[in-house]
Amino acid sequence: MRHVLSLVYKCSVFSKQVTVFSNHLRLSHSQQWGSNKLHRKIKIPNPFREIIMADPKIEEILAPLRANVKEQGDLVRKLKEEKAPEIDIKKAVAELKTRKKILEDKELSLAPAEDLFDRAKMEDLIKRRFFYDQSFAIYGGITGQFDFGPMGCALKSNMIHLWKKFFILQEQMLEVECSILTPEPVLKASGHVERFADLMTKDIKTGECFRLDHLIKGHLEKIKSDKNTKIELKAEIEDILIKLDGMNADEMSALMKRFEMKSPISGNDLTPPIEFNLMFNTQIGPSGLVKGFLRPETAQGILVNFKRLLEFNQGRLPFAAAQIGNSFRNEISPRSGLLRVREFTMCEIEHFCDVKEHPKFESVKNTQMLLYSADNQEQGKPAELTTIGDAVSKGIVNNETLGYFMARIHMYMLAVGIDPKRLRFRQHMGNEMAHYACDCWDAECLSSYGWIECVGCADRSAYDLTQHTKATGIRLAAEKKLPAPKQIEVVEAIANKAAIGKAFKKDSQAINDTLATLDNAALEEMQKELDSNGEYTLITARGEFKLTPSLVNVKKTQKTIHVEEIIPSVIEPSFGVGRILYCILEHNFRMREGDEQRTYFSLPPTVAPMKCVVLPLSGNAEFQPFVRDLSQELITVDVSHKVDDSSGSIGRRYARTDELGVPYAVTVDFDTIKEPHTVTLRERDSMRQVRLPMADVPTVVRDLSNSKILWSDVEQKYPKLEQQETVKGTSV
Amino acid sequence: MRHVLSLVYKCSVFSKQVTVFSNHLRLSHSQQWGSNKLHRKIKIPNPFREIIMADPKIEEILAPLRANVKEQGDLVRKLKEEKAPEIDIKKAVAELKTRKKILEDKELSLAPAEDLFDRAKMEDLIKRRFFYDQSFAIYGGITGQFDFGPMGCALKSNMIHLWKKFFILQEQMLEVECSILTPEPVLKASGHVERFADLMTKDIKTGECFRLDHLIKGHLEKIKSDKNTKIELKAEIEDILIKLDGMNADEMSALMKRFEMKSPISGNDLTPPIEFNLMFNTQIGPSGLVKGFLRPETAQGILVNFKRLLEFNQGRLPFAAAQIGNSFRNEISPRSGLLRVREFTMCEIEHFCDVKEHPKFESVKNTQMLLYSADNQEQGKPAELTTIGDAVSKGIVNNETLGYFMARIHMYMLAVGIDPKRLRFRQHMGNEMAHYACDCWDAECLSSYGWIECVGCADRSAYDLTQHTKATGIRLAAEKKLPAPKQIEVVEAIANKAAIGKAFKKDSQAINDTLATLDNAALEEMQKELDSNGEYTLITARGEFKLTPSLVNVKKTQKTIHVEEIIPSVIEPSFGVGRILYCILEHNFRMREGDEQRTYFSLPPTVAPMKCVVLPLSGNAEFQPFVRDLSQELITVDVSHKVDDSSGSIGRRYARTDELGVPYAVTVDFDTIKEPHTVTLRERDSMRQVRLPMADVPTVVRDLSNSKILWSDVEQKYPKLEQQETVKGTSV
Repeated sequence: MRHVLSLVYKCSVFSKQVTVFSNHLRLSHSQQWGSNKLHRKIKIPNPFREIIMADPKIEEILAPLRANVKEQGDLVRKLKEEKAPEIDIKKAVAELKTRKKILEDKELSLAPAEDLFDRAKMEDLIKRRFFYDQSFAIYGGITGQFDFGPMGCALKSNMIHLWKKFFILQEQMLEVECSILTPEPVLKASGHVERFADLMTKDIKTGECFRLDHLIKGHLEKIKSDKNTKIELKAEIEDILIKLDGMNADEMSALMKRFEMKSPISGNDLTPPIEFNLMFNTQIGPSGLVKGFLRPETAQGILVNFKRLLEFNQGRLPFAAAQIGNSFRNEISPRSGLLRVREFTMCEIEHFCDVKEHPKFESVKNTQMLLYSADNQEQGKPAELTTIGDAVSKGIVNNETLGYFMARIHMYMLAVGIDPKRLRFRQHMGNEMAHYACDCWDAECLSSYGWIECVGCADRSAYDLTQHTKATGIRLAAEKKLPAPKQIEVVEAIANKAAIGKAFKKDSQAINDTLATLDNAALEEMQKELDSNGEYTLITARGEFKLTPSLVNVKKTQKTIHVEEIIPSVIEPSFGVGRILYCILEHNFRMREGDEQRTYFSLPPTVAPMKCVVLPLSGNAEFQPFVRDLSQELITVDVSHKVDDSSGSIGRRYARTDELGVPYAVTVDFDTIKEPHTVTLRERDSMRQVRLPMADVPTVVRDLSNSKILWSDVEQKYPKLEQQETVKGTSV
Repeated sequence: MRHVLSLVYKCSVFSKQVTVFSNHLRLSHSQQWGSNKLHRKIKIPNPFREIIMADPKIEEILAPLRANVKEQGDLVRKLKEEKAPEIDIKKAVAELKTRKKILEDKELSLAPAEDLFDRAKMEDLIKRRFFYDQSFAIYGGITGQFDFGPMGCALKSNMIHLWKKFFILQEQMLEVECSILTPEPVLKASGHVERFADLMTKDIKTGECFRLDHLIKGHLEKIKSDKNTKIELKAEIEDILIKLDGMNADEMSALMKRFEMKSPISGNDLTPPIEFNLMFNTQIGPSGLVKGFLRPETAQGILVNFKRLLEFNQGRLPFAAAQIGNSFRNEISPRSGLLRVREFTMCEIEHFCDVKEHPKFESVKNTQMLLYSADNQEQGKPAELTTIGDAVSKGIVNNETLGYFMARIHMYMLAVGIDPKRLRFRQHMGNEMAHYACDCWDAECLSSYGWIECVGCADRSAYDLTQHTKATGIRLAAEKKLPAPKQIEVVEAIANKAAIGKAFKKDSQAINDTLATLDNAALEEMQKELDSNGEYTLITARGEFKLTPSLVNVKKTQKTIHVEEIIPSVIEPSFGVGRILYCILEHNFRMREGDEQRTYFSLPPTVAPMKCVVLPLSGNAEFQPFVRDLSQELITVDVSHKVDDSSGSIGRRYARTDELGVPYAVTVDFDTIKEPHTVTLRERDSMRQVRLPMADVPTVVRDLSNSKILWSDVEQKYPKLEQQETVKGTSV
């Protein structure tokens, strides 16, 4: 089921952890935030290191598991080659996935741990300093909705600013902003109305809803953890749990019956599986008759504007359009904090092209990336560190343009603070990929929830434009000049528009439009019908109409053409901003050595919510004019900052600054008052300080924040302060 | 009716022009865009000039109209002083508005015209160059929804970028980003569920909806334009049309009956007036039981986060929070292009304060602004040019903080390109203002649709926080240190929580919460009941509960307090981005002298969608490396630009650049190839050119775009090109 859905289900996360079933509006903190008290502290594995220096002992343990996967991968391949019955292939693929999952879990558990990560501590900091928190909390809150406070909002805004620079400016893309409210026909054509659904089940008495896979998982885990359950059943349940993700409605229904599942809340009976469409629906206009949805992705807005954008680009291919905006998905039971929410920001690119070579590929080809190819997944091999140039030339990545975008995504992820050791690109396997796509890679970040899909990068071929062309009759295509003029035979419907208008009145437009979109085969069929029966039944969006030879005819002519029509391919990188933001926070969460209470975010200056804090050493009135001047001059050079003149020791205030992820702190003290006016500048991660003229501060902090200079440059230029900051006991 | 609504109806425009009734989803171009073919060319009046140098002839004509307004204004004031029956005051106010409207229309029509504005020409340019256009046009489109193309999107993005600099950075505000999907209780507390509605009527057979005031207007205008209609009736209709805006449901219903109004589409009967809530509704979660709305404004998200924000600000007042985001209103029949849409971006500020003095007021007090006070409106006087310092000291503007924000709004509007002659601040009159507000001023821009409210700036006192406190029982208040400790008598409910928990189980939380919010009067009442009846009925959100003395008691104690609780006032500047954007386009639309076909937007460089275009003189291959290098270096200094290497004369390409509002163009020609490499730089408005070293271009264009240098500086530094650009015949 989920495989079919994933065709249109970008950024779907493989949520690893579901312990609570109900879909209550009000959830406790741990439910809402998705934290799991049993596993508060999580080892941060280092898959990267493992790959570079594979440990022979670990490899020994993994070898049989790898062989298991390979064996099954080979079987799947063989069945496909032999064109075996689909059901056999499906079963083999499910088994392949099971084996793959066992291998990957083992790999993760054996990987040498880098550090301990304490999710509860990080969540406490996020809430306490209002990076983000549950929406409408004073009204009890809503699951799957979060408000970004000043720090989260600034972090997100800086991430997006950098994204615009990376993609819109540097790649010269066309940015658009399209409507969120989308009428039904658009999402019918895109496939969302039909397929964008999850399975759920309802309490037949109370009507309470449960996401079906969550319910089954919860039920089976309960049985598994029961002391009286036999070992064989436990093993079987483990196997079922792994296969659950790939099961269809019938298979899940069978499980519900076999294990006699009831509502975990009321104990009542449950309905059979129901497909629940994840789009929020509403009515546009007062009549209640025009059905609309909140868009589930931003991409469709770009696609339906293809013709205007092509025209803006003076008819030329390739070009890329991009959109940053909110999308909505009515999750049945949202969990895991920012990773699965009902309302989220996406940055999506649609790159329209006719050839797949990329003029700038040369500039990125040496980028080293961790690639987890479909082949490696099927053969039980780990992800491999390789250059994108090699991956494209070996055919692992389908083409240069896709490879170029993957490299650019990689660079962007590192620039915003993703740990390169916890970033990989995973290729969709044949059975995961939409039938029309030629290749698809997800940028995944390793977090305490497992590997999280943060960016999808798919080559969707001409599928979407073709769908909208079919639905509207408007050809979403570009024209390309031929090297030499060409003679072709043209078959076209010659409509007697006046007669059609008279006969069909307001339906005539639809008839003419449909006639114009018929392909050669349909036209020949029509001619045959007209010749033999004297009429032809035309199917349009407004119904069926009988046409006679007096209304329409088919004509074959020879034409010289100078251009050919091309429906371009679409390469679609799609970024989930909230997920990346969450992973940035996890990857940059730190505790001071010697004081576990002093936690902070080691965010890169470019995306840090503020660039510096200005601190007067004490409430002494003499400091005030200096603080005011500094703040004013930071504003002049566009450096976001904050004055912290609250009471509390300077150590406490540094600790607070660290918590906010602010990379630099400027302190005004008694030496500042003397001429020449100087201040101290402190760097967050090293806690080291220099003394510099006050007048230098604004440009130094600005240049540090734009990565024009490094902290080491500053330390070289200005005298270091020798006294060491004490860590212990300064926590706020 | 609309007056009651306007309490919560920020940014409501007084749409001047409604000629089409039906609410069809698909409208023709002129309906969708709101253009009125009868008045394609519109005089741009100059009210500003009129005010400074009042023309005695014009004043002679206006004098009796002014006297009429004054007479009625005096009457309203007298009635209010005498505390006359409300119905009498209402009638007098309606008459006052009528007279005011007649005066204002006359004023506008007599004002000396600056120029001719051709809306159809501008709309053609906007669509042709895809600044914005109707959403989902290939599917027939949706009224009231627009997609922003590359140029509109960049213009909007630059406006918002400047807004963030002006307000978030320079005023050190806390930016937040809150959820769009809002559960019903939040919007019940804010008053939107009850009052955020327009009147409509439905065709009783087809169900088609019509906005009632639009329908009546259309019907009466038809009668008025009928040759056979008597002069007396025409005059009466004119009077009704002016009063329509202030009519309630009963009055409109009476008009429907009197003039026997039917559906203008089908001729069927119509229902009596129906209140239609303008919020889009949906269900949150799969059960269908949790009602939610798309937020109609962003403000509520900030208000419900007050406590977190106060804490982030370390408990101190004043502070301001801001939010930029989309809001939604399900207009019954959206019209007038971007001015009344179903989905729009707002920038809203909530400034929380306990005192109304502002520390930076001194820095803005000399700002000259066109103020149209309530008093002037009631006395038939025109708007007056005055400094904000004078306006506050004379009490025309209620307080310094409100005045400070008005001045900052004024500065922002000029910075983004609003014509100062077409910008005024209009004060809400007593009867327009919400009962809890102490003062409210709208920044209005004059456009071809009349004066358009673009920014609201209201002092909403403590109303909103009080409402959310009442609804949730959570005190949204700040604490302020008293100058000296104070002894007070405290009356409080002492709840036996254990006993309550046992007696009421899951309702006990609600009971305890409610007990904690009871005021002194309620507590005394409770004590009386407990004493006399032995029980007290407590009303909570979860129902009514009977409490006995064993569960609760009232205690009076003396307490020394060091802080007092303050519910801060909220000053709320609220910007409608789309409306400002539309007015910027109107105010900056130009035609070249001598060629009416060569239209362009004279946008300020700061907000212009791109800063420059790089043009090779021809397709000569030798130009290519220079063009590529220039583009690369512009990227390095973050200058948005476009390479236009399409065929077409340089003149045609300049014209296209002008249409996009791009202020600078760099041309690579045969002289560029020679050493030293030089190029020409052209300025859009003057069409003048200089020759400068290629290496200087990136910084020069960047500094011009950031207003660090002016074009005159560039002309002084570099040699001018003498050959004049020909205008005629280069249109695209």
